[in-house]
Amino acid sequence: MDYRQAIKDIRGVDEGAMARARERCDSLIKPPGSLGRLEEIAVRLAGMTGQAQNTLDRRAIVVMAADNGVYAEGVAAAPQAFTRTQAVNMTKGICGVSVFSRAAGADLYVVDIGIMEVPGTEAVMDRNVRRGTGNMAVGPAMARDEAEAAIGAGFDVAAGLFGQGYDIIGTGEMGIGNTTSTSACAIALLGLAPELAVGRGAGLTDEALANKVGVVKRALAVNAPDGSDPVDVLSKVGGLDIAGLAGCFIAAAYCRKPILVDGAISAVAALIAARLCPAAAGFMIATHRSTEPSYDQTARELGLKPFFDMEMRLGEGSGCALAFPIVSAACAMMNEMGTFADIAFDDSVLVDIRET
Amino acid sequence: MDYRQAIKDIRGVDEGAMARARERCDSLIKPPGSLGRLEEIAVRLAGMTGQAQNTLDRRAIVVMAADNGVYAEGVAAAPQAFTRTQAVNMTKGICGVSVFSRAAGADLYVVDIGIMEVPGTEAVMDRNVRRGTGNMAVGPAMARDEAEAAIGAGFDVAAGLFGQGYDIIGTGEMGIGNTTSTSACAIALLGLAPELAVGRGAGLTDEALANKVGVVKRALAVNAPDGSDPVDVLSKVGGLDIAGLAGCFIAAAYCRKPILVDGAISAVAALIAARLCPAAAGFMIATHRSTEPSYDQTARELGLKPFFDMEMRLGEGSGCALAFPIVSAACAMMNEMGTFADIAFDDSVLVDIRET
Repeated sequence: MDYRQAIKDIRGVDEGAMARARERCDSLIKPPGSLGRLEEIAVRLAGMTGQAQNTLDRRAIVVMAADNGVYAEGVAAAPQAFTRTQAVNMTKGICGVSVFSRAAGADLYVVDIGIMEVPGTEAVMDRNVRRGTGNMAVGPAMARDEAEAAIGAGFDVAAGLFGQGYDIIGTGEMGIGNTTSTSACAIALLGLAPELAVGRGAGLTDEALANKVGVVKRALAVNAPDGSDPVDVLSKVGGLDIAGLAGCFIAAAYCRKPILVDGAISAVAALIAARLCPAAAGFMIATHRSTEPSYDQTARELGLKPFFDMEMRLGEGSGCALAFPIVSAACAMMNEMGTFADIAFDDSVLVDIRET
Repeated sequence: MDYRQAIKDIRGVDEGAMARARERCDSLIKPPGSLGRLEEIAVRLAGMTGQAQNTLDRRAIVVMAADNGVYAEGVAAAPQAFTRTQAVNMTKGICGVSVFSRAAGADLYVVDIGIMEVPGTEAVMDRNVRRGTGNMAVGPAMARDEAEAAIGAGFDVAAGLFGQGYDIIGTGEMGIGNTTSTSACAIALLGLAPELAVGRGAGLTDEALANKVGVVKRALAVNAPDGSDPVDVLSKVGGLDIAGLAGCFIAAAYCRKPILVDGAISAVAALIAARLCPAAAGFMIATHRSTEPSYDQTARELGLKPFFDMEMRLGEGSGCALAFPIVSAACAMMNEMGTFADIAFDDSVLVDIRET
């Protein structure tokens, strides 16, 4: 299935299922609304799957790994080879996302969508579109058809996993330099001021941050991406990892399954997906609040609100892995809590509780 | 062991273990500090247990259930009998805390520390000190020795569980009217303005909230608790559930084990414990941000910062149950992530990464 064809078939969330979920939620033995965001998650899940009650036992994290030509401009603290090294390390179970996925009972899929060096292990899925992007400070990061191919590859990976029976997917990325492409995309799509949308990534000094702001401005000036055309933005100042994740978000909407947004990079990919297919936002769940400055504005634009703030900036999908138990708790609430009817509380009392 | 004797033996956190934990944390294959609050939790856990690496496999939630005489003033939305009903329902596995504890692999202990009606089931632990407090709007909630007995009962329950091998305890409560006693205690201990420290509890109307503010003011005027004497505050305007939880917090410090703070009620109990024994705060971990207005100031006074905000106001210990996986993730990070030494990255590169 071509993702462009899939987009035409995507419908919005199921309002009827959401109403049924809200009704059940209010019948549970608790003051109405007292479980706050957990209730909101449960209702939104119903809108995605079409069922008032859900279980999300089969969980996966998809990590899109890709290199960024803009590395040449000195925008990253880590060496470029780290993209490949860490993609491989993830599959060995020793990275943050590996550890947290295991703890959450989630399977981890690491995808080479654009790593510069061949990973050299079958543990990393080979969906390479090109071996790293070009340097966006001097020209487009990639060709339009490469961006489309990467979106398509991401769509295929995620749709394939949902087809295998996964109930929910968390999104992650690995790509030295990818907060630079993320900031550039967010600026182009949302019209943000560069100074407020470029951050320290994994940990830049003040001087390196000033350089990064300059590089982003140059990339935007050189390429002049059209903010109303998400694929134009993606190809000119984006990355293959972002494109791959955008495809995952589209796949979730197509498969009518929930997909978790991780940090700033994942969020900008989600925004691109939502610009290509507005209904896709209904299938996204924000998890943690990234410390990257573009995150808040991107999430707001998507109508998403993260539910925890761990001051994390690792990326990898680590926030999604930590969020699985929370999302599952929302399901358990709906499936396992008793109702006022179950405990046969008399009606007058029930009114007392429900009306307040 | 008398809790007053135990307090004399409580020492502060182990700074050496914290330093070792910080060192290990910085050796893991991630940019230093990039796992934010998770790193902070891991380091604080080391301070509590004295070990740089920890596992928290055996988890319990202790729910202190008690009635409040101030119910007579119309401060609660739910009927008073709900305290007993819900305490029993918790043991049947159908309440919020039951469901979330089960999901987190935690055992749930529900304690009758002051329920008005006898629960009538052995599933609820009987540590009843008195059958509900007096109405604090007209006189003291309880006698000083009753408050001390309830602290002692809570200490015994939690110390007993740690003695049985539990690694971590989460705190919860059930008591219709207990946000009223919580607000009164917070005001007396912290000198807050009543209008800013009294909230809607499980869900009051504007009118009922105004009445509740008046009741709290009256309770404070009638009893004139001494804010520098936590047991005086507890006995005059507190509750048996709060007293029992304060005992649990002291027990955790005595046993040098972590204990989770739930919402506003649990937090004020933690504050009382810390006033009785300042070193106890070092063993507390805040979890979710309660919507009750006294929560933020109480947590700030304790030097604690919650890590998620689910807009929850159920109580019961539900926030602690949701937090177990996060705290365990901090342990898994320390125990399972690889180090730079493990992956044998060459030194020059290592310096690149670590210095930024």
